[in-house]
Amino acid sequence: MVIFPKGFAAAGTACGIKKTGKKDLALFYSEAPCRAAGVFTKNIFKAAPVIVSKLRVGGMCRAIIANSGNANACTGAAGIKDAVATSREVAEYLNLKPAEVLVASTGVIGHFLPLEKIRKGVKILSKKILDGKNDPGAAAKAIMTTDTFPKSAYATFMSGGKRSTIWACAKGSGMIAPNMATMLSFILTDAAITKNALSRALKKAADASFNRLTVDGDTSTNDTALILANGAAQNRKIDGGRDFAAFSAALRKVCVHLAETLASDGEGATKLMVVNVDGARNDSEAARAAKCVAESPLVKTAVYGRDANWGRVVAALGRSGALVSPAATSVAFGRLKVFERGRPASFSEAAAKKILSAKKVEINIKIGSGKGEAKYFSCDFSEGYIKVNAAYRT
Amino acid sequence: MVIFPKGFAAAGTACGIKKTGKKDLALFYSEAPCRAAGVFTKNIFKAAPVIVSKLRVGGMCRAIIANSGNANACTGAAGIKDAVATSREVAEYLNLKPAEVLVASTGVIGHFLPLEKIRKGVKILSKKILDGKNDPGAAAKAIMTTDTFPKSAYATFMSGGKRSTIWACAKGSGMIAPNMATMLSFILTDAAITKNALSRALKKAADASFNRLTVDGDTSTNDTALILANGAAQNRKIDGGRDFAAFSAALRKVCVHLAETLASDGEGATKLMVVNVDGARNDSEAARAAKCVAESPLVKTAVYGRDANWGRVVAALGRSGALVSPAATSVAFGRLKVFERGRPASFSEAAAKKILSAKKVEINIKIGSGKGEAKYFSCDFSEGYIKVNAAYRT
Repeated sequence: MVIFPKGFAAAGTACGIKKTGKKDLALFYSEAPCRAAGVFTKNIFKAAPVIVSKLRVGGMCRAIIANSGNANACTGAAGIKDAVATSREVAEYLNLKPAEVLVASTGVIGHFLPLEKIRKGVKILSKKILDGKNDPGAAAKAIMTTDTFPKSAYATFMSGGKRSTIWACAKGSGMIAPNMATMLSFILTDAAITKNALSRALKKAADASFNRLTVDGDTSTNDTALILANGAAQNRKIDGGRDFAAFSAALRKVCVHLAETLASDGEGATKLMVVNVDGARNDSEAARAAKCVAESPLVKTAVYGRDANWGRVVAALGRSGALVSPAATSVAFGRLKVFERGRPASFSEAAAKKILSAKKVEINIKIGSGKGEAKYFSCDFSEGYIKVNAAYRT
Repeated sequence: MVIFPKGFAAAGTACGIKKTGKKDLALFYSEAPCRAAGVFTKNIFKAAPVIVSKLRVGGMCRAIIANSGNANACTGAAGIKDAVATSREVAEYLNLKPAEVLVASTGVIGHFLPLEKIRKGVKILSKKILDGKNDPGAAAKAIMTTDTFPKSAYATFMSGGKRSTIWACAKGSGMIAPNMATMLSFILTDAAITKNALSRALKKAADASFNRLTVDGDTSTNDTALILANGAAQNRKIDGGRDFAAFSAALRKVCVHLAETLASDGEGATKLMVVNVDGARNDSEAARAAKCVAESPLVKTAVYGRDANWGRVVAALGRSGALVSPAATSVAFGRLKVFERGRPASFSEAAAKKILSAKKVEINIKIGSGKGEAKYFSCDFSEGYIKVNAAYRT
C-alpha cells in the first residue's frame, strides 16, 4: 500500500519531450483548494516556470504540472507564455483556474517547450486523474532527468488527535548546489495549516536539507520545491505550538531523507558523502566550512578513490573563508581520526580504506572556535560524472 | 641557446622523494644578492615553506630550493624546522646565510619531509652550481607533480639602453584556484630594480595571470610565486616611469604565458578554456562572473564533450553574484553567437562543434551593465581529472 495524503492524486506519462521515450510529464492534483508555499532558485536567470509559480504560490492552488527534458529557461517572454499555456491546458481539463495551477520544468536550457506534445500529455494525465487513478510512482519517475532512480519519501504525524500524512518526490542529480539545492521537489500534505506556518515550515525544512546539498556547485535556473496542503486530514488548523513542531519535524524528516537520496544519486556518484562540522564560531560559519569541503573536487575524487587523503579536506577548510584555527582543528573519516589538533594522526590505512569503501562516508571536522555546527550532503566524484555531462545535450 | 638572465644558475635532480624516481629537487642561485618579492597562498593552512619564505622575502636573497612530491604542509612546528634545515643545508654548500635561501614545496599534504634524501639532493645540486653548470630545463622538470610537461617562459626588455631578461618556470595542474592560482612559480631577472617596484610589478602581473587561473577551485596550502632580481644587467635601477612600465609589461607577458600553459595542462585537460567577460559594472564584477563560468564543472564538461550547451554558461553567470541583467546578456563561443540579449540565438551546431574542438576555446560574454572586463584561464574537465585524483596519493 502506498502511503499518500488524502484528497490528492498524482500521475505521470511520456509525452515525447525526452527522445528516449521515457516518462517526462507529471501532474499532482488536489480535490480541494490548497494552501501553497515554495522555495525557488536564487539564480538571476530564473526559468519561466519559476517566475510563474513564484507569483501563483501566494494564492490557493489545486495542481502542479511538471515536465522533464526541457527546462524552459532562458527563453524570454515566449517561455513565460508557454508556461502559462501549459497551466491553462491543465486548468481546462480539470475545471480549475489557471492561477490555481503551478508549473515546473527541468532539463536542457534554452529550448522552447514543445507545446503540442505537452497538450497531448496533459490530456492523458487529466483523464487518469478524473478516472480516479493515483500513481505517485509514475509521477516521481516523470520528473527525472539524469537520476538513476525515482525519489520519494513520506512521514505521518499526529496533531490534535488526527493523523496527517506528508508525501514528497524529488529529482536532482546534476547542477545541484544551494540555494536551492534540489532541482525539483513536490510535497503534498493533507494537514490543515495556515499559509504562514506552511511557508515557515518549508523554509526551515529546505534550509536543513535541500540547501545543504551539493553535487557540483552549479545552481540551476529551475530549482523549485513546492508544497500543497489541502486540509483533508481535518485536523485542527496548524499555526504554532506543538502541532507546528510536529508538522515541522515530519516535513524536515521527509526533506532530509530526499536530500540524502539525491546526494547518493548525484551524477556519477558511487557513494553518499556527509560532511559534519562542529566547533565553529556559529552555525553559518560551520555551514561555510562544510560546504567548501563538500564541494571540493579533490575531496570528492579522493573519496571516490577510497584514498584517506585528509590533506585535501584540510586544504578546503583553509580556503573556505570560515574562521579556522589550524592548531585547534581535527578531522576524522567516520570515527577514524586522521588529523588531530593541527598535526597528522597516525592511523591504519587499511581501516581508512574500509571506511571509505562504504556506501556512506562521513567526514567529521572539529574546528574548535565555538559551538556552531552544520551538516552537508554531497557525493563522490567519478568518471561517470564526466561521461554524463560531456554528452548530456547530445 | 637558452635565454637566461645573467648571473643566475639553475639545477634539478632526483633525490628520491618521488617513488617514480623522477626529478624532485630544484635549486635556483644568483651570484649576487637579489631583491626578492613573493605572492603566497591565502589558505589558512599555510605550508611550512610558505611561512618561512614569507618572512625571508623581505631581505636580500640568493637562492631558492624547491622540492616536489611532498608539500610539507599541515606538519606543524616540525615542518617549519624541516624547511629551515633544508635552507641551512643549501646555505652551507653555497656559502650563504640561511636567511638568503627561500624554500618551496609541492606534493602530498601531511607527510614530513625526508630530510636525509633532501640533504643528498642539495649536495648534488650545489655541486652542479659550483661547477658552473646551468640547467634551467632540469629545474623546471624537478618542480612538476601531475604536470605532463615542464613550463617555462622568458621575455627581454630594454631599460636605459640595457637589455634585461626575465625567465620563469612554473608548475600547476591541480588544486589550482585564485588566489594564488599557481602552485609554484620561480621568476629570475637580471634587471636592477628597487624592492618596492619589484613587489608592485609582481603583484600586478600575478593578478592578471596566476590569480585569473582556475583548474578545480581548490586553493593549495603551498601556492607561491617568487621573484629574484640580481641587477646583473647593470641597467639604471628601475623605480617607476617608462622603465617600470617596460619591466611590468615583460613580467606580465611571462606570467600570462605561464598561466595559459598551466591551464592547458590542468589535470586531465584536453584543451585550454579562456573566459572573457565585458560590459560588467566594474572589473571586479567582471572577474567574479568570469571565475564562476571558468570554474563550473558543467561548463567544463560541456567544453570537453564539444557540446555547445550555452545554457550552462548562462546558469553559471546567473549564480555568480555579479550584477547581470538577463535581457542585456549575450554569449558567444569564439565568434559564434549562441545567446543574444537574453534570447537563444540560432546557430549551426556543426560550426559550434568545430570551435569547441580546437585546443583553445574562448567563451565570450557581454553582460551589458558597464565597462568592466576580465579574462580567466581554465581548462575542460575530463575523465582524466578523476583518474589522476582518485589515485593521487596511492
